[in-house]
Amino acid sequence: MSTIETYREEFLTYLHKINTVKEPVNLYEPINYILNIGGKRLRPILTLLTCDIFGGNYTKALDAAVAVEVFHNFTLLHDDIMDSAPIRRGKQTVHTKWNVNTGILSGDAMMIMAYQSFESYEPELFKKLLKLFNQTSLEVCEGQQLDVDFENRTDVTIPEYLKMITNKTSVLVACAMKMGALIANSSDEDAEKIYKFGLFLGLAFQLQDDYLDTFGNVEDFGKQIGGDIMENKKTFLYLKTIELANSKDKKQLHNLYNTSTELQEKVTEVKDLFINYRVDRNIKNEIENYTQKAFDILTEIQLPIEKKQELIAFGNWLMKRKV
Amino acid sequence: MSTIETYREEFLTYLHKINTVKEPVNLYEPINYILNIGGKRLRPILTLLTCDIFGGNYTKALDAAVAVEVFHNFTLLHDDIMDSAPIRRGKQTVHTKWNVNTGILSGDAMMIMAYQSFESYEPELFKKLLKLFNQTSLEVCEGQQLDVDFENRTDVTIPEYLKMITNKTSVLVACAMKMGALIANSSDEDAEKIYKFGLFLGLAFQLQDDYLDTFGNVEDFGKQIGGDIMENKKTFLYLKTIELANSKDKKQLHNLYNTSTELQEKVTEVKDLFINYRVDRNIKNEIENYTQKAFDILTEIQLPIEKKQELIAFGNWLMKRKV
Repeated sequence: MSTIETYREEFLTYLHKINTVKEPVNLYEPINYILNIGGKRLRPILTLLTCDIFGGNYTKALDAAVAVEVFHNFTLLHDDIMDSAPIRRGKQTVHTKWNVNTGILSGDAMMIMAYQSFESYEPELFKKLLKLFNQTSLEVCEGQQLDVDFENRTDVTIPEYLKMITNKTSVLVACAMKMGALIANSSDEDAEKIYKFGLFLGLAFQLQDDYLDTFGNVEDFGKQIGGDIMENKKTFLYLKTIELANSKDKKQLHNLYNTSTELQEKVTEVKDLFINYRVDRNIKNEIENYTQKAFDILTEIQLPIEKKQELIAFGNWLMKRKV
Repeated sequence: MSTIETYREEFLTYLHKINTVKEPVNLYEPINYILNIGGKRLRPILTLLTCDIFGGNYTKALDAAVAVEVFHNFTLLHDDIMDSAPIRRGKQTVHTKWNVNTGILSGDAMMIMAYQSFESYEPELFKKLLKLFNQTSLEVCEGQQLDVDFENRTDVTIPEYLKMITNKTSVLVACAMKMGALIANSSDEDAEKIYKFGLFLGLAFQLQDDYLDTFGNVEDFGKQIGGDIMENKKTFLYLKTIELANSKDKKQLHNLYNTSTELQEKVTEVKDLFINYRVDRNIKNEIENYTQKAFDILTEIQLPIEKKQELIAFGNWLMKRKV
């Protein structure tokens, strides 16, 4: 069993132990449900892995790992309401299975529960972790707001898109790793470097997600392929094609993205345009580029080579994943 | 100018200084809006007042006071979505002025901003305040869930109702006061006692709110009289009447509460039933009773008499308020 698998199992055992349904059940049942329907558990694994790599006892990082995972699931819960998404991880979303009000309130409680998870840390570390968590959480909200804002804009640029996914995704990956380092009592410099590593890895991760959403395989990916196209999401693939396309193709892509049709035909036509302009290769280059930028930072950190190898293995796995 | 007025002004000056609109404006503008449309600012005033009473410098309590007020307004924002309420403090609610998604997301950001307000405190105090804040916030969510649950139940008892308003309202009042004491470096025993004082005061405050909602004066109260009755809220007035009424009147009240009509006629009929069973006097007795219970606790705290007088004056003002 790989290190990653070991951490995932350790994390899940711990999560299941503490994730119980209390009174009032209508508040805690949806929380129990969303935390149990799966997910890759990438962020908590990264917290445990990073703590270990910096010489800490990874079991001390379990509470921070829970905080990050509970917070991440809280954002999914509220985002799904905002997107009117019926399905998450192949199961009904909370607001579909219950209702919107339950989704709002259970989500609110989850955010508080995430904060509560830190209470096992001694005051100095507690405050360090909380400050990082506050800043990260607020940036995630700002990223979600930018995502919403972009829906109504036609002039979104690629740098703006990268800023949005940095806030919405990368900062939490970076925060998850930095927390592991802080719990292992790393130097502030190393904690900052591993944070940057996480930022680049998070970007590579999100771009890979964009790639798989359009070019993945439905059996591997576990959700409908072409979802972003159906929802007219201005992803890297779309923005790069708009940048490269001739005026005829640009117009066609604009038109396709202004229809609300969810037909497979629309997905095929948009995909063809993406492929014509080779943006599928382009995004793959970007993913490699950001993964490499992450790896470059590792050279600046004083760590045994075998520890660095674990992070590199994780990065390579992320970049090649199909799910 | 009374002490209360002084604290309100000091608090508002501080709040306005830190409450600015940042990017993305669509996230921060609604937050700025809800924090600016008024309210009695009772909770932050209590934090400042309690800090002062325990010999602390009240300016040190300003950040905790902001946290409590921002959190309180966050709960109003999300509750108004859940209740589909169009008006709050005579102004459009956030989800009406903007939309539901904005309300959800700006509310989420407010909760994080409340946590951020504590960052000025040194680690030991920071952790003490945060633990109290975590517990309180979660109890407020539980109270809101009970409130939602009660809508679909016909067998709600008065003790259950009191538990619900304790969670939804009193614990935050109690928390606001205990924070002031902790910041003033009071003993743990005194902090616990002032928490209990706040719990009773909060109950008296909420029952007075129930009273004013039905028997208040529209000019003083600032919102429509009879709102609770129109929304078929099972308040103390309703539950006590159900308890006391003969079977004919009980049936009539049940029937009135099962009509969705928002006519003034319904309000008048329900009000007449409340008055027939003298529950308007009954609730006034309960309010006095809880205020007295709060005052009784003061005898157990070692404080100069003039400091206790300030709390008594505040309690009496709360009990007699018309707004």
